[in-house]
Amino acid sequence: MSEPVAAPNPAARWAPPGSEPLLDPGLRALLRQALAIDAEPGAVPEPVPPPSALPGDAHAALEAVVGAAHLRTDDAARAAHANGMSYLDLVRRATGAPVAPDAVVLPAGHDEVAALLAACAAHDVAVVPFGGGTSVVGGVRPLAGAHSAVIALDLSRLDALLDLDEVSWTATLQAGVTGPRAEELLGARGFTLGHVPQSFERATIGGYAATRSAGQLSTGWGRFDDLVQRLRAATPAGELRLGRGPGTAAGPDLRQLLLGSEGAFGVITEVTLAVRPVPEVRRHEAWRVDDLATGLAVLRELAQAGPRPDLARLSDETETAMGVATGGAPAAGCLLLVGWEAGAEDVARRSAAAHAILERVGARPEGEEAAHAWREGRFRAPRLRDELLAAGVLAETLETATSWRALPALHAEVGAVLRDALGPEGVIVACHVSHLYATGASLYFTVLARRDPDDPVGQWERAKAAATGALARAGATITHHHAVGTDHAPWLGAEVGDLGVEVLRAVKARLDPAGILNPGKLLG
Amino acid sequence: MSEPVAAPNPAARWAPPGSEPLLDPGLRALLRQALAIDAEPGAVPEPVPPPSALPGDAHAALEAVVGAAHLRTDDAARAAHANGMSYLDLVRRATGAPVAPDAVVLPAGHDEVAALLAACAAHDVAVVPFGGGTSVVGGVRPLAGAHSAVIALDLSRLDALLDLDEVSWTATLQAGVTGPRAEELLGARGFTLGHVPQSFERATIGGYAATRSAGQLSTGWGRFDDLVQRLRAATPAGELRLGRGPGTAAGPDLRQLLLGSEGAFGVITEVTLAVRPVPEVRRHEAWRVDDLATGLAVLRELAQAGPRPDLARLSDETETAMGVATGGAPAAGCLLLVGWEAGAEDVARRSAAAHAILERVGARPEGEEAAHAWREGRFRAPRLRDELLAAGVLAETLETATSWRALPALHAEVGAVLRDALGPEGVIVACHVSHLYATGASLYFTVLARRDPDDPVGQWERAKAAATGALARAGATITHHHAVGTDHAPWLGAEVGDLGVEVLRAVKARLDPAGILNPGKLLG
Repeated sequence: MSEPVAAPNPAARWAPPGSEPLLDPGLRALLRQALAIDAEPGAVPEPVPPPSALPGDAHAALEAVVGAAHLRTDDAARAAHANGMSYLDLVRRATGAPVAPDAVVLPAGHDEVAALLAACAAHDVAVVPFGGGTSVVGGVRPLAGAHSAVIALDLSRLDALLDLDEVSWTATLQAGVTGPRAEELLGARGFTLGHVPQSFERATIGGYAATRSAGQLSTGWGRFDDLVQRLRAATPAGELRLGRGPGTAAGPDLRQLLLGSEGAFGVITEVTLAVRPVPEVRRHEAWRVDDLATGLAVLRELAQAGPRPDLARLSDETETAMGVATGGAPAAGCLLLVGWEAGAEDVARRSAAAHAILERVGARPEGEEAAHAWREGRFRAPRLRDELLAAGVLAETLETATSWRALPALHAEVGAVLRDALGPEGVIVACHVSHLYATGASLYFTVLARRDPDDPVGQWERAKAAATGALARAGATITHHHAVGTDHAPWLGAEVGDLGVEVLRAVKARLDPAGILNPGKLLG
Repeated sequence: MSEPVAAPNPAARWAPPGSEPLLDPGLRALLRQALAIDAEPGAVPEPVPPPSALPGDAHAALEAVVGAAHLRTDDAARAAHANGMSYLDLVRRATGAPVAPDAVVLPAGHDEVAALLAACAAHDVAVVPFGGGTSVVGGVRPLAGAHSAVIALDLSRLDALLDLDEVSWTATLQAGVTGPRAEELLGARGFTLGHVPQSFERATIGGYAATRSAGQLSTGWGRFDDLVQRLRAATPAGELRLGRGPGTAAGPDLRQLLLGSEGAFGVITEVTLAVRPVPEVRRHEAWRVDDLATGLAVLRELAQAGPRPDLARLSDETETAMGVATGGAPAAGCLLLVGWEAGAEDVARRSAAAHAILERVGARPEGEEAAHAWREGRFRAPRLRDELLAAGVLAETLETATSWRALPALHAEVGAVLRDALGPEGVIVACHVSHLYATGASLYFTVLARRDPDDPVGQWERAKAAATGALARAGATITHHHAVGTDHAPWLGAEVGDLGVEVLRAVKARLDPAGILNPGKLLG
């Protein structure tokens, strides 16, 4: 085996081996006080997957495409592709329910992906496209559906920058390029993609596209779907190459059918993206406002009248008190992070305008240090969760977006529903606003509670159902940037209507008549 | 008949009756010199449509929905809905090929639209949704396809502002609201949509959405598809209500399937749009640069590094020499219009930054007067074309978009192909760039030639085919904002691939199983 899959098992926890523990005394004290949990990290048991069920003829057909070195059926490789990174994924894994793909296949490029899909369709094998494995909605669960076996189609060998157009500011990247690798490839030529979701360290270009990712700079730089110029995908019915102009009126925008299709319509293999020169200055600041309403008023003014910052993030009173965002001490009011990444003159102008707005509402500057702490720690929440899970804590997030008018009531309602479902005692619901649009913004909730040792899965499933039901009733989206996967699939009809779901089924039937692509995801 | 359709026949010419002629001595001299045409306006013959073929039971079923006053089968109403506004539409009409819908039906709202679709499906009647009737690609041609009859579904009674959310800056408008009416309704509350395509005076919200319109301020304010938050549509298979957040990751964006669907998937009845407060200042300026390459460099810098203007429009040397944009005298170099519509401080800052860029490349200011002339005359090109057509001129436009890198070569290639197809003598091909993106821009070609009196339709069809073939070969879009209609349908496969077309057919089959919606459009 010439190309080892990252070891040890990356699907069991986020933190690399030997990482420093993040559960500091302040957070431990909070957990003791609010949840009555004495958070001592425990060991995570490592399940052994059941034997591979890949039939011999299917094995031979796949091996004929990628070669023996890139078809893995050993336990380590299969366990490393057994789940994504949702709370339920990790709880199920830790409690030993053994599910794993029957093989991990690593194609070298678009043509091998297309050939693998043909082989899988011929041999009745389901295909789960696998990028960074960071789905938090069950998007990479190895479900065979009605098929004889299931493989993880690992795209990590599609890791090249195929083209950089320095005149038009576009770059074509293969689907398996990770966030850091994209920045390395582009940075060497003076450009950046600037897409930084919390999953940045592991997530891939293909995954960003398939799930409509949003990053911490999406307020200024745009959501991932805004950046996509062209897409190439392999489907069981043939190849799709979409996007022929920076703007077009040539019928419906079919790129928007692949974006968010979560591997159920085809496998995205190449993406052409808008990129930018590496910014001259990156300035991030922390401010404190008296309450959520004041903070929301500031964000709305920045998003509508502008000038819009590139980063904007407002923690509610609970999240601010937890000090999670900055790792600092508990504090009153609401923490507001605001940042600019651009030329020095542009940063100076926009930050000065924002300061004027902030000072008008009585916000207090906390300097760049607290913002620096956030920036340093901004990818560490998944690592912290490893430790919380090991200590018996229910720790999960959910997110939505709605109009500015509906935002305050939705914040209150979802918090109340979650506290009611998991408490009322022993539950913490914290929230931040982190993606601004002219017409509205996102809400991102973090939930901590005592885990029910007898029914941890059911405990969260009920709370999640209650919260998602509240989103649907309020007319808010069921997910702003986490995608549908298995976990949101029951509510897709609430989002797009039953007829909308039927339209998606018609598209899937045309592109994937055998239904081998990512069974159970998106369409349930 | 209580609600007369605008008279006299609005489908025969653009100019209202009694309009002043626009064909001035300068343009006449140019036509004499370049095309050897002595442009004396002639009379346009008015064809009488053939008798309505609407079967009696279908008539009764439609009348049961809308009432007798809103179901018209008289010649005047049918002739007024007989065509769009393309050169071919008007030539066919003037040369007497009589095509007209069998009836014009005017529903009052979404529910009546839905009921009409059910009645038409039951009675095998094709439906052509009709807003302003301004399609220039055959989008409203009354084609019955394989059906027994065809109606024009006139949406002019859906003309209300249903909701204005002044906190979230969104407005919900019915599909039949025209450009001027939208501004009137929103302006009364201090808001503007700011969408100003050349068809502004007649075109409607539903048409903008169904064709992915772009307006003269789209560089700064966004294309129409960028503005759409939510859509409501009636289809033969049921209702679609799409869009539940300012951003979402809940699967593929189905709004983007309806945008650009050109009435082939459903009838858009209501659209929720991002709107803005009426800007404090509107400043438009004219500048002169030495050549197209210099102008393109300025536009690219404004679009990428910014600050981006709201209006940017660069005429090539031919268009500048014609003085068409400003109605002024012929001149050397390239005319560049640039404009800002925003708060006074913002306009001052962005215009000063643009001036610095313009002065650096040696651009000469022509003051606000020439820009004022453009602004005053910006909707008059269709009226001028009335006169050119009556005088025996072939006058048509076509448009595309591509990357900044590919733009100069594409400009040269399309010009050469058109001159070759229609000349080489007696043809003028002028062009402007008018919609900027970070990654590229649009090209808008205007073609004037001597009309072939024996085969005017074939003459243009051959030239258009040659030009569109050149676009497809170059990887540019076949249409930036004119849509597909009948005229571009043969090239849709070149744009999205044969499999992409098949996906669109699968969607249509699910939403419109009887195929009654706008036969022959989009999918051919």
